Amino acid sequence: MLKTDAVEAVEPTRPGVETLRAVPMFERLEAALLAQLDAISEVIAAEPQAELCRQGETPAVLHFLLEGQVALSGTAPDGSQALMEVLRPGASFVLAAVLTDRPYLMTATTTARARILTVRAPALRALARTEPAIGLALLGAVARDFRAMVRQVRDLKLRTATQRLGCYLLALVADPEANSARIRLPFDKALLAGRLGCRQDSLSRAFATLREVGVETHGATVILHDVVRLRQYAMPDELNDSA
Amino acid sequence: MLKTDAVEAVEPTRPGVETLRAVPMFERLEAALLAQLDAISEVIAAEPQAELCRQGETPAVLHFLLEGQVALSGTAPDGSQALMEVLRPGASFVLAAVLTDRPYLMTATTTARARILTVRAPALRALARTEPAIGLALLGAVARDFRAMVRQVRDLKLRTATQRLGCYLLALVADPEANSARIRLPFDKALLAGRLGCRQDSLSRAFATLREVGVETHGATVILHDVVRLRQYAMPDELNDSA
Repeated sequence: MLKTDAVEAVEPTRPGVETLRAVPMFERLEAALLAQLDAISEVIAAEPQAELCRQGETPAVLHFLLEGQVALSGTAPDGSQALMEVLRPGASFVLAAVLTDRPYLMTATTTARARILTVRAPALRALARTEPAIGLALLGAVARDFRAMVRQVRDLKLRTATQRLGCYLLALVADPEANSARIRLPFDKALLAGRLGCRQDSLSRAFATLREVGVETHGATVILHDVVRLRQYAMPDELNDSA
Repeated sequence: MLKTDAVEAVEPTRPGVETLRAVPMFERLEAALLAQLDAISEVIAAEPQAELCRQGETPAVLHFLLEGQVALSGTAPDGSQALMEVLRPGASFVLAAVLTDRPYLMTATTTARARILTVRAPALRALARTEPAIGLALLGAVARDFRAMVRQVRDLKLRTATQRLGCYLLALVADPEANSARIRLPFDKALLAGRLGCRQDSLSRAFATLREVGVETHGATVILHDVVRLRQYAMPDELNDSA
């Protein structure tokens, strides 16, 4: 059950210029522009499983995840759901809907307690019209959003679920030179299966298959014993890891 | 084989303000801005199977398809290809790469003789910085590009190949009230299979399955005898057809 009442502005507060500057989309803006954004922004706290925006509704605000975790999902007319993306702090959602003033194509739900920055949508669009620097910041951000979705379509069309899992694990390896690595899955396996576009039993089979190329799993900890061999199997794309 | 030499600016010409105004992205711009765009643009002719831009290369121009057809595809490290999108006249490609000045994630190839408008990328980015109306036009366009990719990810994750084909056919029906329709596939079945993310034999099976809900096929002509039943089977999404 979604607890929509779990989103509450305990003490509705302006984020302040420093909080805004820490958001990647706004990091290059001058203080005067950040102050203008501050005047149309708020920080709210959200419990886990809180619905922040819903597919089909027209955006009232642009959201940014400051702390915690948020999942974006799409729902079919029969109610079946697809996980589209799991967001990390710093990410905005959903910029394209806010910019076009069109209904959300995805629903955003917290998967953990979260701190959220909201920027009022009509006021943000007005600022984009009058302040070229804000328009450019939005332009870069939505272009990066587009490229992330292109990578996901390419992944879904070109790779098996097992290869997608392998590429996902390889992207979590911090040291590009190392041939072995111990990594931690950033979210649980139900979310991971959804993100990779497979069912949970397929994900389990994928982990089992990857054992043959040196992938060992202990709960959320995954040990890669042979990165080179995993790379040969999963065929990650260099273009897939850059912005 | 790709005939890259088949792209030739037979008589390199400026598009002219009227041609630019006919492009959806620019239709609301004032004549003075269109004249500025005209000065950094060119119209070229391209033969079928001409490669217009290539995955991994940094964009020199933003392309628009004026006439003909262009396919965008992604290539895996082992050379296997996924068709990402088939473009109709009026579409741009690939705006996000041009805006971020990052390598293309897709390769664009003509699938028919085409007339292409090119706008020089660095000059376009400079105009976006100084002319808010151009920045806003680009912002709206890349947001719509993003939403198209979101729909495709959702389709791939939520629907079977047969349902995707059903939704695709339903989107081609002109009259929303009619319960029967005769439609023409806008491109051949190899491209259609790629666009839907399935192999050609799966597409043939999907067409065979849809016969049971009144879908009759004669080459590129498809007759839908019972739109209501097809809708019940494929479950198209209202949000999937709007911008």
